Amino acid sequence: MVEQTRTLWLTGLSGAGKSTLAQGLAERFVADGVPHFVLDGDVVRTGLCRDLGFSEADRSENIRRVAEVARLMNLAGLNVICALISPLEADRSRARQIVGPQQFLEVHVATPLARCEERDPKGLYRKARGGQLAGMTGVDSPYEEPVAPALRLDTSGQSLQQCLDRLLALWSGR
Amino acid sequence: MVEQTRTLWLTGLSGAGKSTLAQGLAERFVADGVPHFVLDGDVVRTGLCRDLGFSEADRSENIRRVAEVARLMNLAGLNVICALISPLEADRSRARQIVGPQQFLEVHVATPLARCEERDPKGLYRKARGGQLAGMTGVDSPYEEPVAPALRLDTSGQSLQQCLDRLLALWSGR
Repeated sequence: MVEQTRTLWLTGLSGAGKSTLAQGLAERFVADGVPHFVLDGDVVRTGLCRDLGFSEADRSENIRRVAEVARLMNLAGLNVICALISPLEADRSRARQIVGPQQFLEVHVATPLARCEERDPKGLYRKARGGQLAGMTGVDSPYEEPVAPALRLDTSGQSLQQCLDRLLALWSGR
Repeated sequence: MVEQTRTLWLTGLSGAGKSTLAQGLAERFVADGVPHFVLDGDVVRTGLCRDLGFSEADRSENIRRVAEVARLMNLAGLNVICALISPLEADRSRARQIVGPQQFLEVHVATPLARCEERDPKGLYRKARGGQLAGMTGVDSPYEEPVAPALRLDTSGQSLQQCLDRLLALWSGR
């Protein structure tokens, strides 16, 4: 039996924990023998999307390409975990259409902005607040919260293990 | 043991037999249980590369993206069969660098132009000769033959089965 492959789409602010969750989930998939691949926004920008910047049009195109690759990988028998800020509903909605609504699981990594700023793993919030970086999501660029995500996870109030358990429960339909 | 995944890159004129060979090889891979995916230039243009046209810059970008996706799929444990005209040495050379020279197998599907024009599966040569289509590779746009392909296959002189046998021999290092 070939199981239907799916794309888990993690959306949320920079520093919300998307990449950490994606990697943690990937490790559990390895342990469970679930074929998968992680498409991380930051990684994709060094390759497939290296020609793109951070204008709204380029961010939108970045999301479109990741969705197209996720679709191809789903067709190829891989489950895909995408970790992208993907701040706009319209872009996520298009991603859902590209991947296929039946295959697409949207998860809002809803860590509050204040906690993301505290973490500031790449120092981007500090730069944005200092006026050295324009267009930072949550600071001077909007983040539109998903209307009806399959799951909403606030990583500030629970451990990584708890978050991963909830992701896996969602994944398994439990 | 995890085997090193590879990308087989089929280059040649329109109508040379690239897609047919790719599909035939994919069927053999299915039979042999080799994890794989076919990235066909025509198919990719309806999705990932739907924003691109046929200018030299756009064709180059098309090839770059396919190579980037092949690289990701190789990383994900899939062997990839690419079928793209990819007429310019510079673009193929970049694809080789993106995929990784150790993983990249270049095959020149070297069916003569006259035979490709006879087949003309999409009616493109007729259009090009009639002046309704500009930039047709082999007609008014160059095809630079690979300098040192791993294999050169002329599908006009041998059967599909013979060609597939040679491709599989190359793949298996026989």
